[in-house]
Amino acid sequence: MVLPEKTIERLSKYRRVLITLNYDQKGYIYSHELANLIHITPEQVRRDMMLIGYNGTLRRGYEVNKLIEKINSIIDGNTVQNVALVGIGNLGRAMLNYLKDKNRYLKIIACFDNDQNKIDKMCCGVPCYSINDAGKLIKELNINIAVLTVPTTVAIEVSEILIKSGIKGILNFTTIPLKVPSNVYLEEYDMITSLEKVAYFTQFNK
Amino acid sequence: MVLPEKTIERLSKYRRVLITLNYDQKGYIYSHELANLIHITPEQVRRDMMLIGYNGTLRRGYEVNKLIEKINSIIDGNTVQNVALVGIGNLGRAMLNYLKDKNRYLKIIACFDNDQNKIDKMCCGVPCYSINDAGKLIKELNINIAVLTVPTTVAIEVSEILIKSGIKGILNFTTIPLKVPSNVYLEEYDMITSLEKVAYFTQFNK
Repeated sequence: MVLPEKTIERLSKYRRVLITLNYDQKGYIYSHELANLIHITPEQVRRDMMLIGYNGTLRRGYEVNKLIEKINSIIDGNTVQNVALVGIGNLGRAMLNYLKDKNRYLKIIACFDNDQNKIDKMCCGVPCYSINDAGKLIKELNINIAVLTVPTTVAIEVSEILIKSGIKGILNFTTIPLKVPSNVYLEEYDMITSLEKVAYFTQFNK
Repeated sequence: MVLPEKTIERLSKYRRVLITLNYDQKGYIYSHELANLIHITPEQVRRDMMLIGYNGTLRRGYEVNKLIEKINSIIDGNTVQNVALVGIGNLGRAMLNYLKDKNRYLKIIACFDNDQNKIDKMCCGVPCYSINDAGKLIKELNINIAVLTVPTTVAIEVSEILIKSGIKGILNFTTIPLKVPSNVYLEEYDMITSLEKVAYFTQFNK
């Protein structure tokens, strides 16, 4: 069964707050406590738990370590997926530093760029290759997922190269919306839109 | 009239693709072309235009420069808002570099950190102050908006300082969900959740 996107987002958040706030050392957590940590309703937490077939006890709530293991098995599927970061500018380098080692089932094993000064060197501990070799290397290195941080002007062109090379999931951080075939999963996030949204609504909070 | 969040997101995207792809030099654009650029339906574009009271012509479509001006007047409100970036680690520095100068009505005029090696120096062209002086400086410098890039462990504590200091809008890039009073606008984005979501759905795209 493929779970809904919003459920996956919440499972990822449950897991991270539980680990970050050291709940894994506390043993048990009630649905209302977990709900409170990510500011949703206890009913929503209970619906998610039912959906993934995880049962708590009325008296003690959910066993945290077992819940984390359950989420691991769903999100990570216990198989490593290889990730490439494409575009090693300021944003790309920061994303690389930030995202690598955050999940042991998601390995950023390569980055791609078109700058001769970066190619064939290490970037934040990850080898950087020429975008011209993407077709060959993405297959050879068994890379499924690409994080896209190239300049907007080349975003569409580069995404087409990646898809042709066999990439099946793209996290697009450029400000250009992409179009992908139905067998490629696309997630887009535009930081400037978020900032502009905050700016718009902040005007009314004087 | 306060517009819905999703409308603001789309207006921000319309404006950016029009400028990035140089449509402002082409004169006019039809609703189906604009829709195609950000992969939504022409009906959605027309509904948004009606909502903001912007009319195209049947024969030539929307006049691009006038549309951009209209969006400017809505999102930016023609007043500069001052922004602070809080937490100058790898992610913070990248966000600073990426977000500054992207919108002339949104000025990142300060950053805050607790690291003595960063305080009272310039960071990417922006002065860095001690988080201990936030209360005073946020008022003095008339800062409304904060971009939060501190480590997760201090995210809640720092957000409380910012709100006490008069911040009215927060863009939270940490992985800890925040709770804010009703007169503060909060937008949260968790990059790790996005990557995990891509990973989950990519498993089914083999």
